Amino acid sequence: MKIDLSFNAVQFDELQLREKNVIVIDVLRASTTITIALKNGAREIIPVASIESAVKISGSLFGEVTLRGGERNGKIIEGFNLGNSPLEYSETAVKGKSIIYCTTNGSVAMAKSRYARTLAVGSFINLTTTTNFIRDGKKDFLFICAGRANTVGNFSLEDAVCAGMMIQNLLKTESLEVELSDSAKAAYAVSKTYSRSIHKMLKTSEHGKFLIDLGFVEDLKICAQVDSVPVLPILMGTVIKLKKEENNIENT
Amino acid sequence: MKIDLSFNAVQFDELQLREKNVIVIDVLRASTTITIALKNGAREIIPVASIESAVKISGSLFGEVTLRGGERNGKIIEGFNLGNSPLEYSETAVKGKSIIYCTTNGSVAMAKSRYARTLAVGSFINLTTTTNFIRDGKKDFLFICAGRANTVGNFSLEDAVCAGMMIQNLLKTESLEVELSDSAKAAYAVSKTYSRSIHKMLKTSEHGKFLIDLGFVEDLKICAQVDSVPVLPILMGTVIKLKKEENNIENT
Repeated sequence: MKIDLSFNAVQFDELQLREKNVIVIDVLRASTTITIALKNGAREIIPVASIESAVKISGSLFGEVTLRGGERNGKIIEGFNLGNSPLEYSETAVKGKSIIYCTTNGSVAMAKSRYARTLAVGSFINLTTTTNFIRDGKKDFLFICAGRANTVGNFSLEDAVCAGMMIQNLLKTESLEVELSDSAKAAYAVSKTYSRSIHKMLKTSEHGKFLIDLGFVEDLKICAQVDSVPVLPILMGTVIKLKKEENNIENT
Repeated sequence: MKIDLSFNAVQFDELQLREKNVIVIDVLRASTTITIALKNGAREIIPVASIESAVKISGSLFGEVTLRGGERNGKIIEGFNLGNSPLEYSETAVKGKSIIYCTTNGSVAMAKSRYARTLAVGSFINLTTTTNFIRDGKKDFLFICAGRANTVGNFSLEDAVCAGMMIQNLLKTESLEVELSDSAKAAYAVSKTYSRSIHKMLKTSEHGKFLIDLGFVEDLKICAQVDSVPVLPILMGTVIKLKKEENNIENT
């Protein structure tokens, strides 16, 4: 199994990802928020790359079951129902709803992966679930860290640490032969340094400090809770839904 | 002093770098080769972003004092005088010559930095010299790791390790207050894991394996020798020359 990784999604063309098995990591906050929204009963997430796309798509859908969520510069977009804080995506707010979702980095990475062979959405809150999906897939995987557009480095420490911790888990699996690209090796090394205190790392990261300044200090706590929401959002057709457990005890 | 870093040069526009103090790191092999060429008496290096630029520029220069050097897919470009192995840039070959220089990653990063306030060229062979230049500059600096175009990750482990080791040196300087961006923190963490054996790291890196396959196994040894060529190539106007020692004993 080869593991490759990109520290941002800027350079990808969607057709380039057609044959790839992709894990999109956007810890702050798209991956975390989508996971919580689906866990809380949202019917589906439709990731789009621009506000224009969100407006076009929502025009063709029924208003009462469709919400628009996301952010620009960390804040709710004018005319949208929800911002990008996981706290807004409660059961009351999202149950049964389709959510057209537009953010600066995460939804762009997901929209670019719309033709990927597989797309799953990973973060700290579903770290082991995501790792198990990769492990059981027994295919080559590509981590796309959403990174941070409009910064010089196009890089987010928290996404690299999260991907690196998943790689740590994969390397611990004895039955698995894992080959790492240079960038995957780097994420692994970064996670070795920063995995001891996820919450502290988030608070001192560039994006974390930006969110604290905007008043989203509680979001960081939620985003830091490893394995707190053990479900897996995956692309099914053109929308993201929860992966059904194949061996679900309730169904036997 | 703020230290920022990009793991590749793909997304930069040259005007974006106008006000920056840039260190371009391309360990395999542009930074190393340029440093050796200038140490061996080359008059100047003119980095260009494309073969077309190289051909245009060399048409307006005198043939006998101008060489064209560089690579595509690791190999010498048709019609060029020199490839990209540091071994080719001996005193006999380069003394007194202007070298128009075109490579896949390094010269592109340098050409994009042509309007930067400062541009210096760093690698393992001039690691301490480069670090001292940053330390004495007392300004904010941006490391641009050349990375590797046409790969998914656009990333080179060796460039991240080299920049990270320079950051290690800066952090050790007691009189210096250094603030690291997320990406600079990541490079630092990566270098902590991989700085113990530079030569081994190069041999197992993606680009290193590629060069070994092409027969350039000796180049890796040269590129791994920390502080073996303690000089600093810097941009002066539109060309890269050696920085003169301000306190050179011979001149006092």
